[in-house]
Amino acid sequence: MERYNYGMIGLGVMGRNLLYNIADNGFSIAGFDLDEVKIKELQEGASSQMKVKGTGTLEDFVAALETPRKIILMVPAGKPVDAVLENITPLLSKGDIVIDAGNSYFKDTNRRVEDLASKNLHFMGMGVSGGEKGARTGPSIMPGGDLEAFTLLQPMLEAIAAKVDNEACTAYMGKGSAGNYVKMVHNGIEYAIMQLISEAYDLLKRGAGLNNDQLYEVFKEWNNGEMNSFLIEITRDIFQQKDSLTDSFLVDQILDKAGAKGTGKWTSEQAMEIGVSIPTIDIAVTSRILSAYKEERILASQLYSEKEITSPEDIKLFIQEVGDALFLATLISYAQGLALLVKASEEYSFQIPLKDVVKIWRGGCIIRSVLLEKFYAAYTKDPNLSNILLDPNIAVLVKSKIKALRKTAGYAAENGISSLGIQTALGYFDAYTTESLPVNLIQAQRDYFGAHTYQRIDREGVFHTVWNSVNN
Amino acid sequence: MERYNYGMIGLGVMGRNLLYNIADNGFSIAGFDLDEVKIKELQEGASSQMKVKGTGTLEDFVAALETPRKIILMVPAGKPVDAVLENITPLLSKGDIVIDAGNSYFKDTNRRVEDLASKNLHFMGMGVSGGEKGARTGPSIMPGGDLEAFTLLQPMLEAIAAKVDNEACTAYMGKGSAGNYVKMVHNGIEYAIMQLISEAYDLLKRGAGLNNDQLYEVFKEWNNGEMNSFLIEITRDIFQQKDSLTDSFLVDQILDKAGAKGTGKWTSEQAMEIGVSIPTIDIAVTSRILSAYKEERILASQLYSEKEITSPEDIKLFIQEVGDALFLATLISYAQGLALLVKASEEYSFQIPLKDVVKIWRGGCIIRSVLLEKFYAAYTKDPNLSNILLDPNIAVLVKSKIKALRKTAGYAAENGISSLGIQTALGYFDAYTTESLPVNLIQAQRDYFGAHTYQRIDREGVFHTVWNSVNN
Repeated sequence: MERYNYGMIGLGVMGRNLLYNIADNGFSIAGFDLDEVKIKELQEGASSQMKVKGTGTLEDFVAALETPRKIILMVPAGKPVDAVLENITPLLSKGDIVIDAGNSYFKDTNRRVEDLASKNLHFMGMGVSGGEKGARTGPSIMPGGDLEAFTLLQPMLEAIAAKVDNEACTAYMGKGSAGNYVKMVHNGIEYAIMQLISEAYDLLKRGAGLNNDQLYEVFKEWNNGEMNSFLIEITRDIFQQKDSLTDSFLVDQILDKAGAKGTGKWTSEQAMEIGVSIPTIDIAVTSRILSAYKEERILASQLYSEKEITSPEDIKLFIQEVGDALFLATLISYAQGLALLVKASEEYSFQIPLKDVVKIWRGGCIIRSVLLEKFYAAYTKDPNLSNILLDPNIAVLVKSKIKALRKTAGYAAENGISSLGIQTALGYFDAYTTESLPVNLIQAQRDYFGAHTYQRIDREGVFHTVWNSVNN
Repeated sequence: MERYNYGMIGLGVMGRNLLYNIADNGFSIAGFDLDEVKIKELQEGASSQMKVKGTGTLEDFVAALETPRKIILMVPAGKPVDAVLENITPLLSKGDIVIDAGNSYFKDTNRRVEDLASKNLHFMGMGVSGGEKGARTGPSIMPGGDLEAFTLLQPMLEAIAAKVDNEACTAYMGKGSAGNYVKMVHNGIEYAIMQLISEAYDLLKRGAGLNNDQLYEVFKEWNNGEMNSFLIEITRDIFQQKDSLTDSFLVDQILDKAGAKGTGKWTSEQAMEIGVSIPTIDIAVTSRILSAYKEERILASQLYSEKEITSPEDIKLFIQEVGDALFLATLISYAQGLALLVKASEEYSFQIPLKDVVKIWRGGCIIRSVLLEKFYAAYTKDPNLSNILLDPNIAVLVKSKIKALRKTAGYAAENGISSLGIQTALGYFDAYTTESLPVNLIQAQRDYFGAHTYQRIDREGVFHTVWNSVNN
């Protein structure tokens, strides 16, 4: 009987595409799904070169795999993963490897690693980014966990991942659930960049009065330069998409209520839990929440109707400044996310190689961008950089754009065009680069009303003062 | 044997002060603490009018109380509360009431309510704000839980609470753990206001160049007007406090690294969990986190040394604008916190009476402010107001200050004085009052790369588009 190199559980679009990608690269692979239609579709969609087999029972599936078995799960995060594990682990043998390729919460992965280890099985959490298309043609892949198990998968992962300069967009992300963690932060940064792009769009549309054709041209130009990135590229495309139901552009027919899948929220919660400041990611999460209050927003817009937007004097200059502001605010969002990875790596003993993180984000994933080349250079020089803003070359770049970010933030504030992402990126930068913050006053207040104590600038120790109340 | 009306477990400063306050109001009360010194201090500090007794064993303590027993816990949140409950519940009788007056997490309270109910005991979560001094002379008290149990406590609570216009700053906050929840949000708002005051301080100090004497005068004037509030009042006092160790003002000797106890973080996490946008509270939490990275901030300030602050042309006007910006940003922070209470009340079936919340916050607590009178009037008119910004009288007030908030935010952005609280308050306001946000683009992006679907403005349903990639 022929044994297959890999197994895939979950043959939805993502699972099927990843399976074909693996098969395209010369690995034989068996698929399993409870849904017979999906098995049929899998077989029909496979090319004749592929060594692919669909199975309808876990017993057949497990029997079809060479040992140690290498089984990839592409099922929804949460209970479905636990359900699969419960059913399949009794069928597996010592040393088999189960790889969860969904967006699982890293703490769930930690629990599963322990559980499977007690059964002499390997469990790995592996982030995959690139959407349906990326899964088929080359995603960015973020595996973490047992190094020995990873080594067995490495040739396959490097074959199927996206390539940048002939380098595969996959690398070992660290111990335990590091793979899920890195993917979670990737998604948090993705939230921030999408929020920032939407603000740039609003400034150009309501501020400078650009129409969709003009917006297309602006984003096209941006994408051809230093802002070249997947999200700028698809934004360019979006402005050209015609609506099939009306005579207008599709973007203008879409309701302004954003959905969310939860990974952005996890990122914000994690940052608070381990004490890292990522305000631009936080604001992207909370802005999506606010967008859902559409009915209240309509009432409020009627009550506060007196907004006057002053067009910028020099439209061309304004567009350039908004572009520079978007570029820099995006850079600062990456800085926040990467700083979270630095702290998480310590906190959870992940040993995340930051250099490899930015290297494998250069291609395949949603936040891929030419900017990551500059980060890669920075981490190559100093792998222990605590914040990307501390790299001297990045500093030169930041300084060249900071005035544009200030002007854009100022324009937005004065004209009532909400730009929470841009404002928080700037506010983070200004706080991070300030030696003495006015937080001494907060410490004084806390000590005044709650006896919470404070530290001093001139000597060691912890102090409390009985503050005088001035009766006036 | 004489029986006491109330019992207090935990005789630290807060517990002892609250106990004396109860005794001052004619109720007899027994105290318990494991620490004999604290029992001695309790007896020695009591006046001859007070009917107070210290006990050193839980058996003596429980035996000293009239039934149904009414026992207040003032011990640190978390495990200490569970430890006390484990030891005391076997000694109690059916119908006895245990009231947790610490900053317990509301979900812990829910668990304890169930646990004690299974033993025929009442458990209540009760927020107390006002610090040590407030506990002694009249705090704001936020009890929630079993209404029958609350009714037994009501006369005592109304006697010991702060008074505003002869009305006690205590009322029933709703079912279950509503009391803890309201206190949690109170603290979240407190974080936001403290952040905003620190930003106003920074703008006046680094922007307008004011010294501590001048800052004292400004805050004194603010506190004498429509910004009259506890936090403005103590800020005024802080600027007059001399250092006992050097020849300078104490505020200038305090290190700018803020501490936090966790209730602010809980508020932000809750808001994300139940889908409410409270960016100014979030940013206050994350700003304290950022302040702790002092060593990195020093490095970054050296790398980015070229900040140029332009003094405002008209200092007097600038001070007034900063004051108006602080006033409005504070109002918007209350709006965010109160909107969280509206949603939580639905989500957890708390039935929180918003009108009573703002009524009892008018005195005794850390966020007490004359501004709350205006909110009280608004909720009196419409108890179901979903956001305080939707009240027409509040809108008039907001409109009178919005230009100052815009100018201040613009000045801060252009001059590099980080003002994340002010910026997010403005950005929240601008997003909340905008009918059409650029979130249509985010939905287009999500559908483009992840097939996440979108809604339309012109018809019902859920849509997905296969987006065209423009090859250029």
